[in-house]
Amino acid sequence: MPQKVVGVLGGMGPMSTADLFVKVVRATPVTREQDHLHILVDNNPKIPDRTEALRSGDTAPTRDALCETARNLERAGAELIGIPCNTAHAFLADIRASVTVPVTDMVDEAATRARARFGERAAVGLLATDGTLAAGLYRDALERHGLIAAEPGSDAQAIVMGVIDEVKIRHVSGGCAEKLEKAVEDLSGRGATCLIAGCTEISLVLSHHAPALPWLDPLQALADALVTEATGRPPRS
Amino acid sequence: MPQKVVGVLGGMGPMSTADLFVKVVRATPVTREQDHLHILVDNNPKIPDRTEALRSGDTAPTRDALCETARNLERAGAELIGIPCNTAHAFLADIRASVTVPVTDMVDEAATRARARFGERAAVGLLATDGTLAAGLYRDALERHGLIAAEPGSDAQAIVMGVIDEVKIRHVSGGCAEKLEKAVEDLSGRGATCLIAGCTEISLVLSHHAPALPWLDPLQALADALVTEATGRPPRS
Repeated sequence: MPQKVVGVLGGMGPMSTADLFVKVVRATPVTREQDHLHILVDNNPKIPDRTEALRSGDTAPTRDALCETARNLERAGAELIGIPCNTAHAFLADIRASVTVPVTDMVDEAATRARARFGERAAVGLLATDGTLAAGLYRDALERHGLIAAEPGSDAQAIVMGVIDEVKIRHVSGGCAEKLEKAVEDLSGRGATCLIAGCTEISLVLSHHAPALPWLDPLQALADALVTEATGRPPRS
Repeated sequence: MPQKVVGVLGGMGPMSTADLFVKVVRATPVTREQDHLHILVDNNPKIPDRTEALRSGDTAPTRDALCETARNLERAGAELIGIPCNTAHAFLADIRASVTVPVTDMVDEAATRARARFGERAAVGLLATDGTLAAGLYRDALERHGLIAAEPGSDAQAIVMGVIDEVKIRHVSGGCAEKLEKAVEDLSGRGATCLIAGCTEISLVLSHHAPALPWLDPLQALADALVTEATGRPPRS
């Protein structure tokens, strides 16, 4: 089967884009360099903040930048597109309408995997941006798959947002992980027995510092889905 | 100063491309996500093997694929281009002739830095592909900057090539580092007092397992040069 060229609509933030890229490379079955996937990355950090757009209601500049970046990937040769930013999935319908190639839904891929890993009726704690929570992205997807979403209280959510902003600017630090522990405790107190890293910057922190609850990484779910779609073969684990 | 859009002519191999990407992101001075550079990556592992092309003399398919990938980056909006593959620099003149935007010379950036770090007349051991050695890329660049190149004996060079092929397919492993130690010993016996990781896969190994001699990473030199050129500011260290 001929491989498909993978497009990555990235930059939100750049470190998460790099992480998805590495996960796709590692998940690709290869025996030599030329077996690896042709991947086009448009790392465009100039796309306006998604949470801020959803908060203010001024969504047009963000939506237009996302759609234009998707079109640029398609023009450059991308045959399917992944988006390593959860909050950007609030604009998924618009992005899909702007191109003729398929765009993978990371949130749905993660919810599918959560059902398989954590079981029906599991209470899944969400570590995500204000924008992702306000748009109900994971709440709706988890409900569709028979799971229950738990969201942090407002103090814990403020900690989560602080960590996300920190990771977008600098590296992941031990301090980030310590702060997130408080949010995980809060979610545990609200009945969560497992977690979804519903923001790609949270994925980066939890990859380096495992939390007290079992957790699922949507970036890995997206990478595996892209490799399956692009190669027609299961991902290398 | 407006930033320039950075293009990365990558895929040779993909892990080195990811490493350059991360190094550029880390070296960019930012206070928020939107300050990060717009980076376009064409990760094209379908470009035929550079060493094999130089060995056989059948260079046209490799040269054409490199030039076409560079043109694709320019069409997508790249305003300067970096190439995270040392051996591909044997085709630098052709790549430069195929686009109207500047293409940074990683080999020359590394040699400049080697002179500053190791001093004039330093004997620099080269860990590189057969193709890079045969093309004399680092030997010539180091001589231009007043340094002396040391190359491994044939047995040690075979070990280096084996490690490179291993890293292109799978991850960096402790086994790779052990094998490279033998090549470093060989270079030390030939008078080398320092090293250049003259292949991006070697950069990956030495980043995880420091060798017995001080070493210089051309990927870092390239990342710093791209950030300086794209932002007009010194890289963040």
